[in-house]
Amino acid sequence: MREPLQEEKVFKDPVHHYIYVQDQTIWDLINTKEFQRLRRIRQLGTSYLTFHGAEHSRFSHSLGVYEITRKIISQFERNSFHDWPKEERLVSLCAALLHDVGHGPFSHSLEEVFDTDHEEWTCKIILEDTEINRVLRAVSEDFPGHVASVIQKKYPKPIVVSLISSQMDADRMDYLLRDAYFTGVNYGNFDLERILRVMRPYKGQIVVKESGMHAVEHYLMSRYQMYWQIYFHPVTRSSEIILRQIFRRAKELYEKGYSFLWMPESVKRLLDNTMSVSDYLKLDEALAQTAFMQWAEEDDSLLADLCDRFLNRRLYKYITIDEPEPYLLEEIRLLFLSIGMNPEYHMELDFPFDLPYDVYRPDRQEGEKKEKAPILLLDHQDEISEISAKSDIVRSITGMHQGQYHLYFPEEPLRDNISQMSLQMQQLFQLNEGV
Amino acid sequence: MREPLQEEKVFKDPVHHYIYVQDQTIWDLINTKEFQRLRRIRQLGTSYLTFHGAEHSRFSHSLGVYEITRKIISQFERNSFHDWPKEERLVSLCAALLHDVGHGPFSHSLEEVFDTDHEEWTCKIILEDTEINRVLRAVSEDFPGHVASVIQKKYPKPIVVSLISSQMDADRMDYLLRDAYFTGVNYGNFDLERILRVMRPYKGQIVVKESGMHAVEHYLMSRYQMYWQIYFHPVTRSSEIILRQIFRRAKELYEKGYSFLWMPESVKRLLDNTMSVSDYLKLDEALAQTAFMQWAEEDDSLLADLCDRFLNRRLYKYITIDEPEPYLLEEIRLLFLSIGMNPEYHMELDFPFDLPYDVYRPDRQEGEKKEKAPILLLDHQDEISEISAKSDIVRSITGMHQGQYHLYFPEEPLRDNISQMSLQMQQLFQLNEGV
Amino acid sequence: MREPLQEEKVFKDPVHHYIYVQDQTIWDLINTKEFQRLRRIRQLGTSYLTFHGAEHSRFSHSLGVYEITRKIISQFERNSFHDWPKEERLVSLCAALLHDVGHGPFSHSLEEVFDTDHEEWTCKIILEDTEINRVLRAVSEDFPGHVASVIQKKYPKPIVVSLISSQMDADRMDYLLRDAYFTGVNYGNFDLERILRVMRPYKGQIVVKESGMHAVEHYLMSRYQMYWQIYFHPVTRSSEIILRQIFRRAKELYEKGYSFLWMPESVKRLLDNTMSVSDYLKLDEALAQTAFMQWAEEDDSLLADLCDRFLNRRLYKYITIDEPEPYLLEEIRLLFLSIGMNPEYHMELDFPFDLPYDVYRPDRQEGEKKEKAPILLLDHQDEISEISAKSDIVRSITGMHQGQYHLYFPEEPLRDNISQMSLQMQQLFQLNEGV
Amino acid sequence: MREPLQEEKVFKDPVHHYIYVQDQTIWDLINTKEFQRLRRIRQLGTSYLTFHGAEHSRFSHSLGVYEITRKIISQFERNSFHDWPKEERLVSLCAALLHDVGHGPFSHSLEEVFDTDHEEWTCKIILEDTEINRVLRAVSEDFPGHVASVIQKKYPKPIVVSLISSQMDADRMDYLLRDAYFTGVNYGNFDLERILRVMRPYKGQIVVKESGMHAVEHYLMSRYQMYWQIYFHPVTRSSEIILRQIFRRAKELYEKGYSFLWMPESVKRLLDNTMSVSDYLKLDEALAQTAFMQWAEEDDSLLADLCDRFLNRRLYKYITIDEPEPYLLEEIRLLFLSIGMNPEYHMELDFPFDLPYDVYRPDRQEGEKKEKAPILLLDHQDEISEISAKSDIVRSITGMHQGQYHLYFPEEPLRDNISQMSLQMQQLFQLNEGV
Repeated sequence: MREPLQEEKVFKDPVHHYIYVQDQTIWDLINTKEFQRLRRIRQLGTSYLTFHGAEHSRFSHSLGVYEITRKIISQFERNSFHDWPKEERLVSLCAALLHDVGHGPFSHSLEEVFDTDHEEWTCKIILEDTEINRVLRAVSEDFPGHVASVIQKKYPKPIVVSLISSQMDADRMDYLLRDAYFTGVNYGNFDLERILRVMRPYKGQIVVKESGMHAVEHYLMSRYQMYWQIYFHPVTRSSEIILRQIFRRAKELYEKGYSFLWMPESVKRLLDNTMSVSDYLKLDEALAQTAFMQWAEEDDSLLADLCDRFLNRRLYKYITIDEPEPYLLEEIRLLFLSIGMNPEYHMELDFPFDLPYDVYRPDRQEGEKKEKAPILLLDHQDEISEISAKSDIVRSITGMHQGQYHLYFPEEPLRDNISQMSLQMQQLFQLNEGV
Repeated sequence: MREPLQEEKVFKDPVHHYIYVQDQTIWDLINTKEFQRLRRIRQLGTSYLTFHGAEHSRFSHSLGVYEITRKIISQFERNSFHDWPKEERLVSLCAALLHDVGHGPFSHSLEEVFDTDHEEWTCKIILEDTEINRVLRAVSEDFPGHVASVIQKKYPKPIVVSLISSQMDADRMDYLLRDAYFTGVNYGNFDLERILRVMRPYKGQIVVKESGMHAVEHYLMSRYQMYWQIYFHPVTRSSEIILRQIFRRAKELYEKGYSFLWMPESVKRLLDNTMSVSDYLKLDEALAQTAFMQWAEEDDSLLADLCDRFLNRRLYKYITIDEPEPYLLEEIRLLFLSIGMNPEYHMELDFPFDLPYDVYRPDRQEGEKKEKAPILLLDHQDEISEISAKSDIVRSITGMHQGQYHLYFPEEPLRDNISQMSLQMQQLFQLNEGV
Repeated sequence: MREPLQEEKVFKDPVHHYIYVQDQTIWDLINTKEFQRLRRIRQLGTSYLTFHGAEHSRFSHSLGVYEITRKIISQFERNSFHDWPKEERLVSLCAALLHDVGHGPFSHSLEEVFDTDHEEWTCKIILEDTEINRVLRAVSEDFPGHVASVIQKKYPKPIVVSLISSQMDADRMDYLLRDAYFTGVNYGNFDLERILRVMRPYKGQIVVKESGMHAVEHYLMSRYQMYWQIYFHPVTRSSEIILRQIFRRAKELYEKGYSFLWMPESVKRLLDNTMSVSDYLKLDEALAQTAFMQWAEEDDSLLADLCDRFLNRRLYKYITIDEPEPYLLEEIRLLFLSIGMNPEYHMELDFPFDLPYDVYRPDRQEGEKKEKAPILLLDHQDEISEISAKSDIVRSITGMHQGQYHLYFPEEPLRDNISQMSLQMQQLFQLNEGV
Repeated sequence: MREPLQEEKVFKDPVHHYIYVQDQTIWDLINTKEFQRLRRIRQLGTSYLTFHGAEHSRFSHSLGVYEITRKIISQFERNSFHDWPKEERLVSLCAALLHDVGHGPFSHSLEEVFDTDHEEWTCKIILEDTEINRVLRAVSEDFPGHVASVIQKKYPKPIVVSLISSQMDADRMDYLLRDAYFTGVNYGNFDLERILRVMRPYKGQIVVKESGMHAVEHYLMSRYQMYWQIYFHPVTRSSEIILRQIFRRAKELYEKGYSFLWMPESVKRLLDNTMSVSDYLKLDEALAQTAFMQWAEEDDSLLADLCDRFLNRRLYKYITIDEPEPYLLEEIRLLFLSIGMNPEYHMELDFPFDLPYDVYRPDRQEGEKKEKAPILLLDHQDEISEISAKSDIVRSITGMHQGQYHLYFPEEPLRDNISQMSLQMQQLFQLNEGV
């Protein structure tokens, strides 16, 4: 067992003011190169192209998740709540700090195209031969395995898992506050201090005192607002589509044997699907952007154009479609072909609910990979109920929303060929409007 | 002359809430690839290694300088102040927006090693064949020249220059607020709205109503605090030293004919000193970080170590030296040599006042390149005085401070060779202290 | 017609930073003694006994409503929206500033007991012989009448009325922000600047661009949160009950001919129901508190106890009752009588929905006194719809909530007579719990 | 000894978010009627007439001082600093909470006229027969005496005294933050959390780690700004002058045997100088305002006018005088007499440094009543120095400032008699300017 730090260390943090480090193990983990790499991965992927403040990194978010977990546990300890297993403090803090360490550059887009999974990489980084692994093994030989199993939600004590992975976990609480701060919106500002005060360990799970119900509603409404205003923002979706198409095109070309002007080893392994942990750790967003800068000069004009679009923010436009009838999509496809566009890339139908986010789902669905413990209220008679049973507001946001489809496309070729388009198509693509 | 936008556009900004764009020219400038490139240059260089929130870009700062300038001018126009030349609005806004467009990656460090000058590059980007130049020429053929001359402080109307370059200009006002926001400190929070309200155009210059003196003192104190707490932070200085050493070592190796594993064309031109505008525009911080990642595997162990230090934040430590006596420095040099260190790189004496910052200097010094108009107070009798003549506080911060020297060095080789060091040297380098 | 002020005046305001006064008429209205009296009336009545920061006055709120109205109109004028009748600017600003000028001390409680109506008093103060009336008449002879009719919602142009009285008016927007600021909660912090940007005058009413729907949802959720967390707070309800009982008891005693130790003339007129405007203007919260201080020493022990309770915050406790069955209430009444309590005063059943607040009601109900224009969205096809037709969230908060009844009572006599109570009653009143 | 509370209680506070009460004694003290009375005494006296948000009470400030003290002690305990005497926790918290309990209405003005002293009243309230005394005696018989002696700065352990009474004590830290919050200025926002982190108990006193010097400078600059922008505001001075004149006139009339229309018993005792503790506790600002409202109708036209001025904010105007030459003052006096003004009241020369505030004084001056421990820095060699020895900034604000004299006067009689005044006098009093 490692000793506590002689003197508490702090990080200045805009969201939590200060982040307090009291354990040598935590300090050492932060200083590993695998953790420092998170400085080069943005927390919100391409959102900075919509909200220019959103340049914050997964490094800062990971510290924030650690800090909220530390505060929750410290509250449990200060109040001597017996249902909190004190010996789980360090494993909880380590899992909180490391839960995102396997994220790659522009993670969600990368994962969709290359079928990788950041959680798997997180566990590999914890369990294989890395600096992180060495720090964790200094605690005990089986400690890396414990930390990984918390992250995999397989740890035998669900209360530990729920700290960093449930419907109201330290992960979500930090990212809502942090993303609100850096984008500059005030939708995500729920009252963290109040929420922490009403959380209780209770019979192996975490519950909320019923008197705190409105504070939880406020947190869930913040989440709802953030999803609609930030995470599902249609301009951000456009940049994600382009990003995914870059990865898709590069993969396609690579598989065809295309010879790239520039192809660093670690990207080659990604395309090859032969990455080791050490290859994976070389991937970061600086590398991705540098690749795009180089590829913007490739001979393949599709790849070059996509990279130029991403770097210089010439994004796809979109139109809203209530019901994507097959005949209409076919008509568009034919139009696009007729004017030299590539429908495989240049028309993308998007339905924002395909995202790895949900506003709130009360029930654990069978077979789902990421089942998250729901939010439980504890009333004066020590009875527990799931929050949507008590709150109209929560019920109203748990239902599936009727979303709209967006059709994304590059506007320039359409404008250039406007004379070849029917009036109806011109109207559909809003080409007759001013700038 | 370009028309105003049909509908005002806005950017969400954490510092100013919203940034309002009302002119087609401004909108078009923002969408050029040269301006979008500023998204890939951090405002505060390496400060993110000390303050993890400080990932904000020069893109966001440039929008902020534009917005403050827009607010000042709008206040002048709303109050119908006759001393403000209304026809200078657009040139002022463009100069505010573009004043930093020539910054390279980690600008100050780059400039020191390669003797480039971001202001010169800014003017080239405005005047040569670029997207920015095309947008400006759409206003009038000589418009690019006007914008450049404002930035070079040669524009015939000093009041226009002083908006973006004086002791209390839109540039400084934005960066103090922005850097405070993203680092998370509250030292930089002066009352912008109050300052804007007391500014007046007066006989060709900008003055401040005497009743606003305390607000200006507050602004200057914010500046003083920010310099000491953020800009001169010794840990940030350490990362800048390493960065400069990377550039220096790469240049040295290149000049010696060393064959790099990885050397992109635009970096070669930088080392060659043969950069064109289009080469320069390919330099960004993603490229720099990618280069460091590649070079961390170079055969040259010095370059490889420096790159690894920068990426994984294994910074140099420092000790404080009141008076750097030559004999002491020589003794250290010999010690370092004796244990295999390279004093050319591994010992760097730093005096923080070498920075391109000053807290406040009331007088324009002859021959200085960057002379900045001082802050002038206008009293009830319409008499003007420089603020340090009226304020004790300002006088106290304008004087030169007695700074301390810091000696930076890599700690590991010293610790590894502690047995070969005298007790005195062990104490000097604080090697006997705990971690 | 009065001229604009030579120089804009400002008030420092914590919510809006500055409040800008540009018209001589507004400046003169603020300086009348009737408006200055609002400094001595709290915005949130007795809420300061629950949230100690909530000492802010109706003076500050009235300035805030004026400022938001000024900003809305200024946005309409800046964008040259033709549907805004420019000539209505001054009458709108005056009505915004004066809409609350008829509030008495602890207004809602006072009105319930004495059946007065602050809106009627507002109109009297505007129309009868007062300093305010003189300032308004300096604009034109019929100007006071115009201002009053806006406040009475009878003004011929509904768009003017809706600025200060609709489901999203300047009044509510200011009080949500202001009450959140002074209580210190962050539930009321919607994005005012965004809401102002999406408001439009359109065919005689105010509408919101559909793209602003989520911002409006956020505003309505803030309202919902504020009602539950602040306005309906059960401890505040307790202090309001005691306050109402003081007024009720004083009235009862006065009507019986009881001789008070202290009875200022203006209070006598209130009890007599013979108040003139000038009597009414002498009522303020300082007077009310002074009366309570004096009456705390009256011979009538009920009045004295109530006053002591209010001043020294010895509030009634409460228990929650799902369904107030008559037999249960009768049982309690008998118990209270049996131990010397006075059920007329000492048991008060409260249902929080009796308040002059509602979260949001989409429809104007026939015959209702305070019908408020609903929130209308304007879509891209220039079609208008009421917001709850488009938003699930809004629908979920417009429905009538199942509230709970609270039974308020003084705890001390129960504790003192615990031995005379059945176990069931002890449990009902939670007397066996710790402190 | 009293037990801790079963469950921590909280107060929502805008400055500290939450105020935590963990001791039964503290909870009971807050619920005494003497402490609740502080709700009816404003923290900033008449400043609300300049800054309309400044309605906050000494109740909220007292809770804030308690909370900061609690945080300091909790930091000392968490870090196990041996120089902190743990047994002094409760006495420190009680003294912090109660240090202002003896303040009367508009305290400073009252004290100047009636020669009372709030600190003496505080001690009487603690030591004589009051609810507070009963709560304190429940701890131990000599506990009230201990608490009082801390407040009187006579407690044998200076470290306890310095927590609530030194150049950087919990009292000042709370009022700077709180007054900044409620007035709405941002000058007072120093980094409390950082300051708390660098404070240390050391050999019987409190010191600050030298690395925290800039944070302390920031705190002192906040203080400097607050004094000039808020506490010494010339409009606030005007309202204080009128207030003092009301008290002075009432006393004068009373001593002459004038028969007041309204004279409550507790005010009579004040004028008589025969107040008991229980009389004193009946004085609050509601009573004062009610008295002014009644006296505004007195036959004595001077008293009536002063009261009307205060209530309706018809304040005295002022002119600035660099050097108040006797001949000039005499000339003014004669002019005032000649047009029927009363120079005893209508001309008041004010020098703002007569206030019970100082920006910072490093040395304890012999014989001074309120000597405050200076701010001490502790360097790496464990040597202590007073901060102004190390900081230029601090030195620059400790010096005595050259202040200006303000001459206050009612403007209306001058305007009404302008024809009788010399041109020079018209200019001096700025009567020829527009409104």
